[in-house]
Amino acid sequence: MEIISIGTELLIGKTLNTNAHWMARRVTSLGTMVKRMTVVGDDTNDIAKVVHEAVKRKPRFIITTGGLGPTFDDKTLEGIAKALNRKLEVDEKALKMVREKYEAYVKAGRIERVELTPPRVKMATLPKGAEPLPNPVGTAPGVMMKVEGTFLIALPGVPSEMEAIFEESVAPLLKKEAGKVALFETSIYADGIMESTLAPLIDQVMHDNPYVYIKSHPKGEEKKPHIEIHFTTTAKSSKTARNSLEKSVIQISELIEEKGGKIKFQRKAT
Amino acid sequence: MEIISIGTELLIGKTLNTNAHWMARRVTSLGTMVKRMTVVGDDTNDIAKVVHEAVKRKPRFIITTGGLGPTFDDKTLEGIAKALNRKLEVDEKALKMVREKYEAYVKAGRIERVELTPPRVKMATLPKGAEPLPNPVGTAPGVMMKVEGTFLIALPGVPSEMEAIFEESVAPLLKKEAGKVALFETSIYADGIMESTLAPLIDQVMHDNPYVYIKSHPKGEEKKPHIEIHFTTTAKSSKTARNSLEKSVIQISELIEEKGGKIKFQRKAT
Repeated sequence: MEIISIGTELLIGKTLNTNAHWMARRVTSLGTMVKRMTVVGDDTNDIAKVVHEAVKRKPRFIITTGGLGPTFDDKTLEGIAKALNRKLEVDEKALKMVREKYEAYVKAGRIERVELTPPRVKMATLPKGAEPLPNPVGTAPGVMMKVEGTFLIALPGVPSEMEAIFEESVAPLLKKEAGKVALFETSIYADGIMESTLAPLIDQVMHDNPYVYIKSHPKGEEKKPHIEIHFTTTAKSSKTARNSLEKSVIQISELIEEKGGKIKFQRKAT
Repeated sequence: MEIISIGTELLIGKTLNTNAHWMARRVTSLGTMVKRMTVVGDDTNDIAKVVHEAVKRKPRFIITTGGLGPTFDDKTLEGIAKALNRKLEVDEKALKMVREKYEAYVKAGRIERVELTPPRVKMATLPKGAEPLPNPVGTAPGVMMKVEGTFLIALPGVPSEMEAIFEESVAPLLKKEAGKVALFETSIYADGIMESTLAPLIDQVMHDNPYVYIKSHPKGEEKKPHIEIHFTTTAKSSKTARNSLEKSVIQISELIEEKGGKIKFQRKAT
């Protein structure tokens, strides 16, 4: 799985990339591994380049966010079409979705009549062979296409729209793909031990527990080491996962206490 | 400029990538454009691949964050060495920096004596030809090397350390490169106009003001459109920048009001 975030506001540091973070967490919890995340600006060539590169790596899923709206700088579909060498065509199903949105806006008294202006038709202009995904909370549909073995999915950048389309159309597909694997995690906190002393201990525990991934995150000041030790594992049953995690937590705790460190537990498992 | 963030915690959605956001903002304000941001996990091959790809695009700067610490999964320098086909060697200047840190920890009574264990020596083991950058607030030095016309800079993932090394060693270099160009920005807010109606107006104003970049960010609910319109421009003088921004803001405000929309100003210029 690769996530591609599109938007110049991300590159200039105006906007924090919470979309990629939300999706990484959600995708991981559904049992799929994110291998790479990329951010590029609203430039057709730059978008085409990253999409082309990602497709060549043949992941099972590529999900883009951003750049599906009506404005001139919403260039995601143009970029995707260029990357795949496909034509952009008005899609009748997508146009129906967009038209129904504006009909609803007329009913709600927000606009006087449905005018399918070029910026509005643009939202229904998809790369050839693509399927629109209904947008339950906004106007621009999501877009899904198959490129050989890869599902290439484009979602809007507005978080509420991105999340709604993801939950309605993407999550069920990911669940089906992943089977019943899910991520389990827990953290403990170590005080009074330096990260360089902790390093070989983590190494040993990971060696003894090959299905558990352990990472240390220093949180304290330089003068007062406080280290989060984060354990993750994926498993088909929560019992297997909990057993692996507990075994690793006990082992590392004992090793740390032998070195004079102190452990605080703060468990959570999702 | 490209930013590469290294850390599996980012890919699983455990950690929000505030480092890339901070750096994008800081780099932009110093007059350098970020073209791409990438995130990969703590895997030597994955790191080597993204670094190799980035170097091939020949940006003036590549900055990585994360993966410089003492633990087994801090693999950034290994990945960079692999990407550049350089050997990893203990660097005497870097080792001196690391040793002085542990000497200070002994003085502060935190450890009994300086032991340069393998995890600690690892932080001073750099790709051949690299220079260590002093870390004012932590142990692992930053690393800088020149690859043809590109500065490749590796900073730690702990935000306080990353920011301190950036300000001390990287910002002066960026300032020198960029001359005195700086970013100026402002936002206005439009109510009562739909994004698809706004789109051609922005198009027109950008056409008339080629040095100004304008982007709309829908913020409201579907039923109550509220759109941030964000203007950015880079210029050598703040007077030039302010003039361009004001001209664009006035023009778009007039166009929006002609369409029945309402404008709220909330200026900031940095």
